[in-house]
Amino acid sequence: MKSTMMEGALSLNHLLDRAGRIFAGNEIVSRLPDKSLRRHTYGEFHRRTRALGSALQKLGLRKGDRVATLCWNHHAHLECYFGIPAAGGVMHTLNLRLSPDEIGWIAGDASDRFLVIDDVLLPLYKQLAHLHAFEKVIVFPFSGSAVPAEFADYEALLAAADPAGFTYAPHDENDPVAMCYTSGTTGRPKGVAYSHRSTVLHTLVASLGDFWGLRGTDVVMPVTPMFHANSWGMPYGAVMMGVKLVFPGPHLHPDDLLDLMQLEPPTLSLGVPTIWMSLIQAFDAAQQPGSPNAGRWKLPRGMRSLVGGAAVPESLIRAFDRHGIWIEQGWGMTETSPVCTISYPRAELQGESDDEKYRRAAMAGVPVPLVDLRVWGDEGELPWDGKSVGEIQVRGPFITGSYHEVPLDPGKFTEDGWLRTGDVASVDNLGFVRITDRTKDLIKSGGEWISSVDLENALMAHPAVAEAAVIAIPDEKWSERPLACVVWKKGAAAQPADLNAHLLKHSFAKWQLPERYEFIDAVPRTSTGKFWKLKLRERYPR
Amino acid sequence: MKSTMMEGALSLNHLLDRAGRIFAGNEIVSRLPDKSLRRHTYGEFHRRTRALGSALQKLGLRKGDRVATLCWNHHAHLECYFGIPAAGGVMHTLNLRLSPDEIGWIAGDASDRFLVIDDVLLPLYKQLAHLHAFEKVIVFPFSGSAVPAEFADYEALLAAADPAGFTYAPHDENDPVAMCYTSGTTGRPKGVAYSHRSTVLHTLVASLGDFWGLRGTDVVMPVTPMFHANSWGMPYGAVMMGVKLVFPGPHLHPDDLLDLMQLEPPTLSLGVPTIWMSLIQAFDAAQQPGSPNAGRWKLPRGMRSLVGGAAVPESLIRAFDRHGIWIEQGWGMTETSPVCTISYPRAELQGESDDEKYRRAAMAGVPVPLVDLRVWGDEGELPWDGKSVGEIQVRGPFITGSYHEVPLDPGKFTEDGWLRTGDVASVDNLGFVRITDRTKDLIKSGGEWISSVDLENALMAHPAVAEAAVIAIPDEKWSERPLACVVWKKGAAAQPADLNAHLLKHSFAKWQLPERYEFIDAVPRTSTGKFWKLKLRERYPR
Repeated sequence: MKSTMMEGALSLNHLLDRAGRIFAGNEIVSRLPDKSLRRHTYGEFHRRTRALGSALQKLGLRKGDRVATLCWNHHAHLECYFGIPAAGGVMHTLNLRLSPDEIGWIAGDASDRFLVIDDVLLPLYKQLAHLHAFEKVIVFPFSGSAVPAEFADYEALLAAADPAGFTYAPHDENDPVAMCYTSGTTGRPKGVAYSHRSTVLHTLVASLGDFWGLRGTDVVMPVTPMFHANSWGMPYGAVMMGVKLVFPGPHLHPDDLLDLMQLEPPTLSLGVPTIWMSLIQAFDAAQQPGSPNAGRWKLPRGMRSLVGGAAVPESLIRAFDRHGIWIEQGWGMTETSPVCTISYPRAELQGESDDEKYRRAAMAGVPVPLVDLRVWGDEGELPWDGKSVGEIQVRGPFITGSYHEVPLDPGKFTEDGWLRTGDVASVDNLGFVRITDRTKDLIKSGGEWISSVDLENALMAHPAVAEAAVIAIPDEKWSERPLACVVWKKGAAAQPADLNAHLLKHSFAKWQLPERYEFIDAVPRTSTGKFWKLKLRERYPR
Repeated sequence: MKSTMMEGALSLNHLLDRAGRIFAGNEIVSRLPDKSLRRHTYGEFHRRTRALGSALQKLGLRKGDRVATLCWNHHAHLECYFGIPAAGGVMHTLNLRLSPDEIGWIAGDASDRFLVIDDVLLPLYKQLAHLHAFEKVIVFPFSGSAVPAEFADYEALLAAADPAGFTYAPHDENDPVAMCYTSGTTGRPKGVAYSHRSTVLHTLVASLGDFWGLRGTDVVMPVTPMFHANSWGMPYGAVMMGVKLVFPGPHLHPDDLLDLMQLEPPTLSLGVPTIWMSLIQAFDAAQQPGSPNAGRWKLPRGMRSLVGGAAVPESLIRAFDRHGIWIEQGWGMTETSPVCTISYPRAELQGESDDEKYRRAAMAGVPVPLVDLRVWGDEGELPWDGKSVGEIQVRGPFITGSYHEVPLDPGKFTEDGWLRTGDVASVDNLGFVRITDRTKDLIKSGGEWISSVDLENALMAHPAVAEAAVIAIPDEKWSERPLACVVWKKGAAAQPADLNAHLLKHSFAKWQLPERYEFIDAVPRTSTGKFWKLKLRERYPR
């Protein structure tokens, strides 16, 4: 027998139209280059997004054409999220923090046909224009300046378009809507193309109560760039639930974020650990007697902060919790849309000690629905016993099964169709994933593994340490040994012996202690804020 | 270009396996016929459900075969929800409140091959066994009595099965998992068949923060029968989020529900308005001096109560709110999985008056994501202006597009593929749907429409009125006029003139007042607890 249910494609256009009808009065706030705030309503968003779709079709956009964006987080970028697919195109978010060479190479690999770019980023465009010929460059007058005559003016295109007469490009639910390139800390960046189906499913799953817990009364501040795995998919969730959005624009300095939090207090924010580390440091410094920022900021008590993109040290979670802000850690990759696991308070652990609560919160969390997750060892699947460590492999409708125009690589996908994440972890009996390392960051000392992440977290809990990154250096006897690169807090310092004593107290064995310490000014970071250990390895080959 | 996302079917089996792994220690509590509580864990649920799948295959179940259930709300019924589809079968929930003739007819129409039945319902089975020949009758020993030898014993089948060796039947995401028949207040009941896809999508959407807002720390008490639109789909949501379930079994008397709430206080419950009306009456009576139930019950403050299946009078919402219990109204049908709209507090209405808050809460609510909804008048689609009234039509991936083995009826589906709900409503600028009537329940008086639902709600707000149902009677001059059937509260009464004065105060026009009152002992109800106006129309043809 057959199901009697209707057929029909999952579609971003449905979410767009729903928001335009039901949430027409709700606000989308963007911080402009001059730091003033621009307010739009979902009604305007709906009209402008359809106008963008109409304008793109008038410019000759064909089904499946890539339209790149090179933009900060703001309302017009959100319009691209929905307007480009509405016209049948594929939005390709370019990462403005990469070098011009890399951006140009990526635009070429994706065969981007059009480009939407913030006027304030035109200097960057000029550095890469010779590397890839965009057929049409549409400039969003973010700063309010006149758009140079050689480019199309985003606002002029919208003003000339006919949003009411626009009809959505017909599509299948498996048609692509957006593209994002992996950050490529190793090897070449590779393209991942999300579909209507994968995006709608990811949005539904991630928005659920125990994960993002999105409600219409939320005020969401996405600090995570919209070119970084689609700001983790949050823009789609926000539109689905009609939440007020507060976009920080180009102003990501901790002082600026704290200022914005005073103007538009968020209930939910998202960003990488670096952002929150700097933010709490700036806030704490302002509490010191005589600080020029004394009394300038309050932290938004009760806010939830979604943190991902790199492991979150327990000390950071504790620091925010003291201010009534709960950090919810997630783990995922560009390849996974990105939400794979989220750490949330479980019913089974009610009544647990604070230490236990923080310990769980510092884990990657529990696989969300529709994500199959397994731990793979040398001899197959490993049990979820909190001890067995192997590579995390995932599968599901919002996980990539290939890369854009790259032959299937057995180093990336298993024969039975799972994505090899390259992250090494154990999973416990409650489904909590504990990432111990990237495969390539594990330290193999005398046949035993040492987790660089564990060492880093323990070091960062020392009162004098601001940041710590641990890499492997070759060793004749043990094959590899840990080298710890440590950044002191301002005005603080300690002796290696103190750090070792601290680590021994944190239940490290003597053989697991760093072989050597290097004291550095800052840990090099990738464009997405992750520790760039490749650079450290180059600096300290032995 | 193509999306790079993995293919793969949405599947209930994924939710089942996830719950078995991640939530293995969480509880499922069932009230047995002797009123004792039986506790299962999700781990046992997972093992037993797979055992059921294995046992059904051993009995010869083939792909697509219907397995009927005739059961109260309890853990074994939940096992059928997942175990029957796991084996490739289609669970068909039979409504034990229908007459044996109707049940027999429905089982025949669905060609049910096997039956799972509670031992306490065997007397009902004996009344219908001659109407449809089930190939195998599996008796669940709910009361603990020995299963008669002519039937298969559910527990014995499970004990003999091999859950570890069981493999799920291969399936497409559009394959059916469950069947439910419309309540058929008019005409013959018709079968709706849900698929893996429709069920997973409905579960994701309904569980979102502003709707069910399911979290793992919730304790959910489904009073809505599991044979009534799958208990609105809540069992699927509960398994997805790992929430503790408290099943009332056969004990639905208000005293029993209140007792159960003392033993296992829920944070979320669901049922039709009738249940909550009786419950609040029983609770209020217990507060009277000298009541035999004095001090027996506390209401679970902070609980949310999902109410649907019939319009919720504002007076009921106010009555529960006084006790710190918030009633969240939803609207839908068997045909719509069933959640189509839910009324929830909107950000736009923060700071509104209590009166306005209650007025909104008494509406059907806002269309949920993935549901397209339109108001259709004689000349096409009507605006969402809070005034224009027409038939509600819906479309989406968890809406039925046909009925099981029934030719497509233009009275039920539009030419462009929307379901005609038969409900008449307006929608306002915030998307709030206000059902004014069933198409057939509207009263057309002198060319103007009178809403029987509005009259009923206003009458039920009168202090002496327990229940009121309004029907149309033919009238020579006005074509139709309203007749109000009123049930007094115990010991209370009033004059028709008082009721009319009350209605005039509630902003009814004089011509909208009931033409006549009938004072009756109880409003006849359908098996699903709705006012059965057909019976009243038979009783009062003029």
